[in-house]
Amino acid sequence: MFIAMNRFQVKHGHEDEFEQVWKNRDTHLNKSPGFVEFHLLRGPDADTFTLYSSHTIWATRDDFEAWTKSDAFRDAHKNAGNNKHMYLEGPHFEGFDVVQHMR
Amino acid sequence: MFIAMNRFQVKHGHEDEFEQVWKNRDTHLNKSPGFVEFHLLRGPDADTFTLYSSHTIWATRDDFEAWTKSDAFRDAHKNAGNNKHMYLEGPHFEGFDVVQHMR
Repeated sequence: MFIAMNRFQVKHGHEDEFEQVWKNRDTHLNKSPGFVEFHLLRGPDADTFTLYSSHTIWATRDDFEAWTKSDAFRDAHKNAGNNKHMYLEGPHFEGFDVVQHMR
Repeated sequence: MFIAMNRFQVKHGHEDEFEQVWKNRDTHLNKSPGFVEFHLLRGPDADTFTLYSSHTIWATRDDFEAWTKSDAFRDAHKNAGNNKHMYLEGPHFEGFDVVQHMR
């Protein structure tokens, strides 16, 4: 299992706009091989921004990497440049491998 | 749904030791009300450290907060001071609320 996260520092006042972008996104993520589950996460408030993170679970790191080379990925990110005004910093990508699991 | 993460910058050379600490931990997390699932995640390598993150899913933020006030939490963290030599920085806590979900 592999978790792909992208951290966004969203300027105060742009939180609703940022969440709407994700709600309205026409993504084909759930048709991609190895895709398990997607969450958009709202993290702690800092002085000047709210931390958000996208959080996508993939069966394997290879599935994630194949998706980053797909047409679906290119389509999902083609308008990303329009959103830059909302960010103080980011997106900053971090990929995580699961080394332990407990239910 | 609420995700509690703790980020650890583990100095190079201490990765195996760090993972062993988590494997051998006698935690009662899975008996705590609202606990859903725990993962230990290994993230990207930087020049001087490997990023790790604990990743605990709770039904609600309130369940998480109740756990932080419990005897089980105190027991799980009583030896945490012994591990400081492994960290360049951290642990750094971040709590996340789920604002969107897709399967």
